[in-house]
Amino acid sequence: MRDVAVIGIGCTTFGEKWGTSFRELFLEAGALALEDASLSGEKIDALYVGNMSAGRFVEQEHIGALIADYSGMASRHIPSTRVESACCSGSLAFRQAMIAVASGLEDVVVAAGVEKMTDVETSTSVDALAAAADREWEGFVGATFPGLYAMIATDYMNRYPLTREQLAQVAVKNHYNGARNPIAQFQKEITVETVLRSALVADPLRLFDCSPITDGAAAVILAPLERAREFTDAPIRILATSQASDTIALHDRRDISTMDATVAAGRRAFEMARLTPSQIDLVEVHDCFTIAEICAIEDLGFCQKGEAGRLTEEGETALNGRIPVNTSGGLKACGHPVGATGIKQVCEVVQQLRGDAGRRQIDGAEIGMTQNVGGTGASVAVHILGRA
Amino acid sequence: MRDVAVIGIGCTTFGEKWGTSFRELFLEAGALALEDASLSGEKIDALYVGNMSAGRFVEQEHIGALIADYSGMASRHIPSTRVESACCSGSLAFRQAMIAVASGLEDVVVAAGVEKMTDVETSTSVDALAAAADREWEGFVGATFPGLYAMIATDYMNRYPLTREQLAQVAVKNHYNGARNPIAQFQKEITVETVLRSALVADPLRLFDCSPITDGAAAVILAPLERAREFTDAPIRILATSQASDTIALHDRRDISTMDATVAAGRRAFEMARLTPSQIDLVEVHDCFTIAEICAIEDLGFCQKGEAGRLTEEGETALNGRIPVNTSGGLKACGHPVGATGIKQVCEVVQQLRGDAGRRQIDGAEIGMTQNVGGTGASVAVHILGRA
Repeated sequence: MRDVAVIGIGCTTFGEKWGTSFRELFLEAGALALEDASLSGEKIDALYVGNMSAGRFVEQEHIGALIADYSGMASRHIPSTRVESACCSGSLAFRQAMIAVASGLEDVVVAAGVEKMTDVETSTSVDALAAAADREWEGFVGATFPGLYAMIATDYMNRYPLTREQLAQVAVKNHYNGARNPIAQFQKEITVETVLRSALVADPLRLFDCSPITDGAAAVILAPLERAREFTDAPIRILATSQASDTIALHDRRDISTMDATVAAGRRAFEMARLTPSQIDLVEVHDCFTIAEICAIEDLGFCQKGEAGRLTEEGETALNGRIPVNTSGGLKACGHPVGATGIKQVCEVVQQLRGDAGRRQIDGAEIGMTQNVGGTGASVAVHILGRA
Repeated sequence: MRDVAVIGIGCTTFGEKWGTSFRELFLEAGALALEDASLSGEKIDALYVGNMSAGRFVEQEHIGALIADYSGMASRHIPSTRVESACCSGSLAFRQAMIAVASGLEDVVVAAGVEKMTDVETSTSVDALAAAADREWEGFVGATFPGLYAMIATDYMNRYPLTREQLAQVAVKNHYNGARNPIAQFQKEITVETVLRSALVADPLRLFDCSPITDGAAAVILAPLERAREFTDAPIRILATSQASDTIALHDRRDISTMDATVAAGRRAFEMARLTPSQIDLVEVHDCFTIAEICAIEDLGFCQKGEAGRLTEEGETALNGRIPVNTSGGLKACGHPVGATGIKQVCEVVQQLRGDAGRRQIDGAEIGMTQNVGGTGASVAVHILGRA
């Protein structure tokens, strides 16, 4: 396999984008990525797009073709492929794009993610998102994601030392970081009280424990590492890609407070990159709910099981901490346009490794990681990137 | 890139399968493919699944995880990825699986396709399928696929010599072949009169010009060619994979009677395999409507533009003809569970190349081709396979 590098990144602002359609969101992110790589669209050999549920959000499937068409690339008849794995769709598009370049089949490839979630009523969104769980055994009996993650939080808090305040501190940290990220949906700092006084959604999770419903798109451009300097002075090398599955229904898991797919994907990624957690300078994890960040930090091996609450409270996951987590603001503050999230995570890591992250920059960051989750952990993708 | 071979195939019967759920359909096809390759599931390194619209047909997304779980592979946390490209989804899952093996990242990989279409009312199915067209510019104004392909047929018949009877002969031939295929939804022979007397759906297309709504699944197992004989005495080598895009809306095409994406994908595949059309022993094409087969034969280069009607009438595309087309019965007689169709095409070619096609066997077939279309031609994938 050839080494592969990221040579360009682009991300729309995330939020309630009433004036921008599904296809326009992709175009905006793609154009930013091309500009970032100083490339014209004619140089693109293939497209991969992560999207969870345009079929239900905007009644449109065939997303690969749509995107190729509206970006003007259909005239060259380039291959364009949609990949879906619920909230992990973006990372899997990135992974497939990387494999296509690594194989030698393609050279310059766009990996993008897009979701337009606000064109339907909230109840429709919630039901569309519930299709990431097991429809027959979870959705059918009324389980939606806040409830499922609340069960994880309840189980976790019964077995490990995690206080309600420590859980709130995940949100406080991510809002602090988001307030320093121009693309974030929420750019306001909050306090522990903001979280604790917010409406109860599914006990123990409150409104400020939950990531919002969001429109947005992100795109990155990949090329063989050996060609990367044709396009950029600061190529970022993909050191590892990994992906793991688990039972789709939460009740079938060995242990609902540990995401075995995160453990498996993390181990495989560290092995592929020949690195250990202590060598990672920052990590973007999938904090769809605050409890998910707690589990992710532990399941990736950044601390022992049961320690992530204390780690968060002591500021070790903050911008100036031992292992900064979700420097972008995470899903919590950036928002979570599900198909786009995995690609946005890569964009953040690339910005950090380039030293372009402005007020949220981690000094001297050389190696970064992303962890992107589908559902309650039925699919997880992990990527490690490093300065080339 | 490593050479890749098909080492196992499996296909459910196609039809209205009221007693079989979406997930059970996949399991049935997967189990048949494992049995065919004399493999246990423990040997599988990764899964790729083609599916167009489970979100709208059965309210389930996150198909990769679902499939990994219900096939018992989630316990090993193997990667499982859903690929979507409307009716071309199956072929793109096959292509991604092939690239994963060719890259060296994976060894033994399942590529499957599945669609469960009959659990909703017909009007819902038709609307779900319309999401393969441009929702904003086609679906929104009421265009559905019979109407779009009727426009292609009308344009074609105005410009090229194709009689209504010749068009009907496509259906007659495919029903003849389907009557010899145990998995086909329709196993009855028909006559030109059957077609001409059937209900008008969208002028000039009648009921028997249209492929039906179908449940079904198909799976194939891929491995590096160098390891293929560990699993089978008759490995089938993948000689070429190609994929092309075009505008999603029909009205934006250069010429609606020629599928430029088929032309592009066909050329690329012949180039990759270093073959010409005259060296192909049989071809499975995407006859979602009879006119689509006429265009496909020409656009792949098996005859000049305007000749496919005469070719069909003269029997040159029949089982004993110069270039047998849709020996399986095609989408017309087998049925068209959209995500499964591309994989079923590969299963048919593999059966023919192995000499296992029974009453529809093409004597001495050594090289076969598949052409799978998304929408009205906005995505097309072509594969060429040969005896190893």
